[in-house]
This record gives sequence, structure tokens and C-alpha cells, in this order.
Amino acid sequence: MSSKNISMAVIRRLPKYHRYLGDLLDKDIQRISSKELSDIIGFTASQIRQDLNNFGGFGQQGYGYNVEALYNEIGKILGLNRSYNAILVGAGNLGQAIANYSGFRKAGFEIKALFDANPKMIGLKIRDFEILDSDNIEQFITDNNIEIAILCIPRNGAQELVNRLVKTGIKGVWNFAPIDLEVPDGVIVENVNLKESLFTLSYLMKENEEE
Amino acid sequence: MSSKNISMAVIRRLPKYHRYLGDLLDKDIQRISSKELSDIIGFTASQIRQDLNNFGGFGQQGYGYNVEALYNEIGKILGLNRSYNAILVGAGNLGQAIANYSGFRKAGFEIKALFDANPKMIGLKIRDFEILDSDNIEQFITDNNIEIAILCIPRNGAQELVNRLVKTGIKGVWNFAPIDLEVPDGVIVENVNLKESLFTLSYLMKENEEE
Repeated sequence: MSSKNISMAVIRRLPKYHRYLGDLLDKDIQRISSKELSDIIGFTASQIRQDLNNFGGFGQQGYGYNVEALYNEIGKILGLNRSYNAILVGAGNLGQAIANYSGFRKAGFEIKALFDANPKMIGLKIRDFEILDSDNIEQFITDNNIEIAILCIPRNGAQELVNRLVKTGIKGVWNFAPIDLEVPDGVIVENVNLKESLFTLSYLMKENEEE
Repeated sequence: MSSKNISMAVIRRLPKYHRYLGDLLDKDIQRISSKELSDIIGFTASQIRQDLNNFGGFGQQGYGYNVEALYNEIGKILGLNRSYNAILVGAGNLGQAIANYSGFRKAGFEIKALFDANPKMIGLKIRDFEILDSDNIEQFITDNNIEIAILCIPRNGAQELVNRLVKTGIKGVWNFAPIDLEVPDGVIVENVNLKESLFTLSYLMKENEEE
């Protein structure tokens, strides 16, 4: 099934379905109607049916959804039925926060090493990781079958680094640097731009006040 | 001008315009056509004109945009022509990363204090901040005219904390906890869900591979 006809809006709702279904599983709830799912997740029942129909449906009219089956199916759609080797570049506060968060590992994303360009950081230990020298990044990626690079670096130099990474055959970049990276086809960039998120908050607060 | 007719997709593009215009200003570029802006920002020229028309236009046919004027106007639209007092709750790795990032302060978001519920953290100093006891959060918000709460806490207890915060009259919550918070009208929640972002990356990588 190709993503070509599926809008980014639908795609971005999938992890949310996955999270809510995981919560239901934790509560041992085995079956749920789109109406009940709608009540807890906040999308309309029709939206939910429409979203899931993009991937082949799953629900049985009148019977609702099997929670575990749907959770597993959405997990598969999200590519969570396998694991990914990752490296993290930029071992500052944010990089350390991400490296220390066990939830990513539990979901199958295994950070294999931390890299930094700052000589003062290289060799330091962060939890289980020794911080490695960015100069050796290509060799490490090749030797360790790394598919994802997590970038927690400033924008200066980020594009140059990505140019090096894509040559190694990296497939995905999780980018926290406030820059729109250019990558060839076959490489996906997912941005987390904290400033843009904060500015969206201030926009909505302002509009809310003016109403 | 109300946000009611403006889609979230447009709103989320505004900070990006602001960033690119800021870059142009740094390079002393004073005027730019929607075509040139399109080349660097990656939206079509027609999309750019349409987006900006939501807020009254700004461009002059054949003359393009005045970069500084447009930067300032979009800043105003985003609510960046003023400052905001904020607190940050949850002084772990992620909380410290955010508290230490000077870019938010430069944009007018002033973190006035860090709070944590862990007795071992209370009293520690992170940069300029002493970590305060979450028990005293209401008093601090009232005394310091705090409008924004930044939540870098686990999901357990997040809703209870928010219930306390909204009673103090807080106007915005920048939420990093993986939970959909319920708040009354008049309070805006902007979520940063890192796991959902990472799962979107794995989805897109999988689809990319299958093509």
C-alpha cells in the first residue's frame, strides 16, 4: 500500500490512534466501537472510520474494533513491527534528553551511539553511551547498520552533516535543528521545530484573547 | 482579525515564513517577490500569496514584499510583538534543555522559574534557576504574572497539574507530556509529542522503501 494517496493529516493521526489503543490494551479492553473510540480520542466516529478505511478498514459493522488487532495493525502500518538502529548527533541537553528516554527504545528505536563535534564532550559518558567524535560517523553508520540519524545540533553545519550522512545510505533523519534540510529521494526528514511550535501557541493565545 | 476562518495548516506555516524572513533580514535583503520566496521556502508562489492574503496581503503587485515589514507583520500576527512570562514544570533532561535554550528568551518567552515534584531536585540550581517545589506553583503564577506553563513531565499526573494551573488563570500550556490534556475554553494547549513524530518518520521510511 503506498502513502501516495494518503494525506499527511491522516498519517499524523495514526500515532495517536496507536497510543489510545495501547492505553485501552493496558486496561484490558478488547473491543471498542468507533463511537466509543471517538469519545475518548476526540475525533468524530465518521473521521475514525474514514481514516482507518485508508488502510483497509478493520472494523466489523455492528461489532466495533478488536483493540489488540487494530493496535497491532496500526503498529505495522507505522513500521513498528521491527526495530531501527539510530545514532544521535549533538550530545547537548536536548540530545541527552532524547538518548535517555527509554520510550523510544521500547518502541524499537535503538540509539547505538552519540556523536558530538565538541572535543570537550568526546569521550564523556552519558548513561550507557560514550560520546564519539563526529569525524568517525560514516564508519560507524556503515559498521552498525544505522538507518536513522537524530540531529540535535544547531542549524549551522546541519546541512553539511546531512550531506555526509546521506552518502552513507541513511534512510531517515529526525531533525531538531531549525533548518529545512535538503535530502535526495529515498531519505525522509521529519522535523521537530520547537520554536515553530511555541510561536503557534502564542498565535493561538493571542487569537483566543481577541475573541 | 479572528483565527476562526484560518486553517491550522496556514497557521503552522506562519512561523516558517517568519524564520525565512528573519534569515533574509540577517542577509540585508530588503525586498523579495513571492516567486523568490517560493524558491527558498519551498511553497508555491500562489500558496504564499494565498496564505498571506488571509491576513490582509502585504505584497504590492509587481513590487514583491518588503522583507522587514512582512517579518514584523508576521511577528505581530504570531503574538511576538510582546513578551510572555512562563514557568517550566519538570526539570529533567528535557526540561533543562528547554530552560537552557536562549532562543525562546530572545523571542520574548521568559522562563521565570523551574518546578519539580522530586524532593531530590528541589533547591538544585540549573543555570540561573533554582528548582522550586511544585507545591508552591499557584502562588508563583499569581505573584509573577505567568501566562504560559511548559510541561516536561510524565503523563501520569499531568492532567491533575493542569487542573491546578488553569485555576490560576494560566492562558497557554506548552505540553511535552504524551497525553491529550483537557482544558476549559480560554486556555490553549500546544502539544509536542516526540513519539508521534518519531512514528511518523518510521511510517514514511517504510512507505518510501515500498515504493
